[in-house]
Amino acid sequence: MLRTIEWTGHAVRLIDQTRLPESLVCVDITTDVQMCDAIRRLVVRGAPAIGVAAAFGVYLGIRQPKPADLLSLYSRLNESADLLAGARPTAVNLFKALDRVRRAARDAGRDTAGMAPADAVEMITQRVLAECLMMMDEDRRSCQAIGQHGLALLAPLIDRAAAANRPLRILTHCNAGALATTGSGTALAPIYAGAQQGVRFEIWADETRPLLQGSRLTAFELAAAGIPVTVICDSMAASLMAAGRVDAVIVGADRVAANGDVANKTGTLNLAIVAGHFHVPFYVAAPVTTIDLKTPAGSDIPIEMRDGREITHGFGRQTAPENAATWNPAFDVTPADLVNAIITDKGVVRPPFAEHLRKVADSPSV
Amino acid sequence: MLRTIEWTGHAVRLIDQTRLPESLVCVDITTDVQMCDAIRRLVVRGAPAIGVAAAFGVYLGIRQPKPADLLSLYSRLNESADLLAGARPTAVNLFKALDRVRRAARDAGRDTAGMAPADAVEMITQRVLAECLMMMDEDRRSCQAIGQHGLALLAPLIDRAAAANRPLRILTHCNAGALATTGSGTALAPIYAGAQQGVRFEIWADETRPLLQGSRLTAFELAAAGIPVTVICDSMAASLMAAGRVDAVIVGADRVAANGDVANKTGTLNLAIVAGHFHVPFYVAAPVTTIDLKTPAGSDIPIEMRDGREITHGFGRQTAPENAATWNPAFDVTPADLVNAIITDKGVVRPPFAEHLRKVADSPSV
Repeated sequence: MLRTIEWTGHAVRLIDQTRLPESLVCVDITTDVQMCDAIRRLVVRGAPAIGVAAAFGVYLGIRQPKPADLLSLYSRLNESADLLAGARPTAVNLFKALDRVRRAARDAGRDTAGMAPADAVEMITQRVLAECLMMMDEDRRSCQAIGQHGLALLAPLIDRAAAANRPLRILTHCNAGALATTGSGTALAPIYAGAQQGVRFEIWADETRPLLQGSRLTAFELAAAGIPVTVICDSMAASLMAAGRVDAVIVGADRVAANGDVANKTGTLNLAIVAGHFHVPFYVAAPVTTIDLKTPAGSDIPIEMRDGREITHGFGRQTAPENAATWNPAFDVTPADLVNAIITDKGVVRPPFAEHLRKVADSPSV
Repeated sequence: MLRTIEWTGHAVRLIDQTRLPESLVCVDITTDVQMCDAIRRLVVRGAPAIGVAAAFGVYLGIRQPKPADLLSLYSRLNESADLLAGARPTAVNLFKALDRVRRAARDAGRDTAGMAPADAVEMITQRVLAECLMMMDEDRRSCQAIGQHGLALLAPLIDRAAAANRPLRILTHCNAGALATTGSGTALAPIYAGAQQGVRFEIWADETRPLLQGSRLTAFELAAAGIPVTVICDSMAASLMAAGRVDAVIVGADRVAANGDVANKTGTLNLAIVAGHFHVPFYVAAPVTTIDLKTPAGSDIPIEMRDGREITHGFGRQTAPENAATWNPAFDVTPADLVNAIITDKGVVRPPFAEHLRKVADSPSV
């Protein structure tokens, strides 16, 4: 499996996803400012990965130079967390991860009574690092759990495909795979889990304009894992389904509102409507950390608007007239009634989502 | 208005649409082989324009060197027509145009009784040229007629937008404008006609992957005409409609089957489903030459599959892993029940299409 985020002991090593699929290269991040920039430029992306990356960003912010005392440490920690909170607005994992790091530092602070300032600083810093490593590990395990729950959900479709002697045909949008997490992904986790058990898949990857995470990242990581994948333009999903060539759609999520509305990569709503039209099951896969009970509905989720040059200058060549107006929301909101199920690390959530999401989000961690 | 196809007296001058929007340059086509290549490479594209271009291609095939006698002329004419018939499979206008040129030559042949071979050849050649020029002129007038009929269809929406003191917001896919015809276009004709009368528009142009005819061509020609246009990725249409920012969708067509099913640029089906979901009217604009009564239903329309490199290497940069599998149909089929009306040069056709298309296709030419 690709190591999207790794702690080397000296730096946070990220796969530079802006360079894929042409080059698989890593960058070593050593400051909070670098991490913020990496998140903003999509060197690292995907809601779960962003959460872990942001947490590490805060750690880097307090690590060097060593704060002289607790006051300075907490002030630096708050500055780093505020900086990273401004990196991207939609994925809730980022904000939850920052909250968690703040809390870990605060809790650690309670245990420093009577310690020399330098020792107290060192202990809290180590506890923040431990929290980051724990979050990375939890994310990895949560991917595995999503994989198992997703695979169980897909079982009837797998059986039907096997009976017809054909692979199970899954369409996915954007990249919600290993490169979006520190484990085996969210939407792709059931596919990796199934492939390990010998399930035959045929994956359709929406290229995912404007930044082509589908063709650049999903096609890359599935091909690297030996899983057959075919790239289509986003707008071809309908004719593919009309031809009866898609058994299910699985996508990730950047934030799931309390009512089950799902913010995910732009184009997801399009796909959900088309899947609904053709009665193709539409599944969302996300860890419970992506569920935001504080956001009542999709309309309350802030949607990041990005530079129009992603549309007009995306491929190394200008593809629209000079100064063409553009509209470039990075995400859209799929209403809960278009979602058949949400595959979480704590089980598959079915409608009514308002009730069932609350239960799963409140249940103990994996 | 842009002159997509022009007869200079020596050559067929085409705007090289593969070079837009960066450069507005023309190429002079002097042989049938060049014309076939130009159609295949999308130097000229759009169903009505392809028809006229193919007809001129046949003329170029018999023009030089001069055939010695009628036998040689008809043999050359058939060879050229067969060559051009293989250029692209979906737009029916191409086949109808070739039939029409063949018929013109045959009819002219009947008037050559008793003429010297060289004179007969010259007369038939001139009649073929006259037929090409007439087709170009008819296409121009048919665009105008589509513009007027379309404008009448849009009148209630225009009134409502005016009452709300906002522009009429039309979303279109691919390019069905001046660059797709020898006149003011099909889908864009009502917009040009309305703009001339002072109607305020706000046009959303789907960029239209893989070849970006929306951002490269539609945005280019509308901006050149001073009509406000905003480029979006194809997959953003749903969120735009969810936000209530689209009053109607108008697209062109490459072939309309007898039952009203519409083959058009890949992504049209997607858009029609999404428009239906949001109760946004979905209109198709096409001259009656695009209606193919010999094709019973959409499933009978041959769909051109194009090179996957259009997806993976679209614009000067590789955007998918080496040897990535792709699926690249150039067109899709929108079933008649997703189409609210078809705007033709002979009036607006409403369901039931099977009955009403027959009437309009059989009625006398404009």
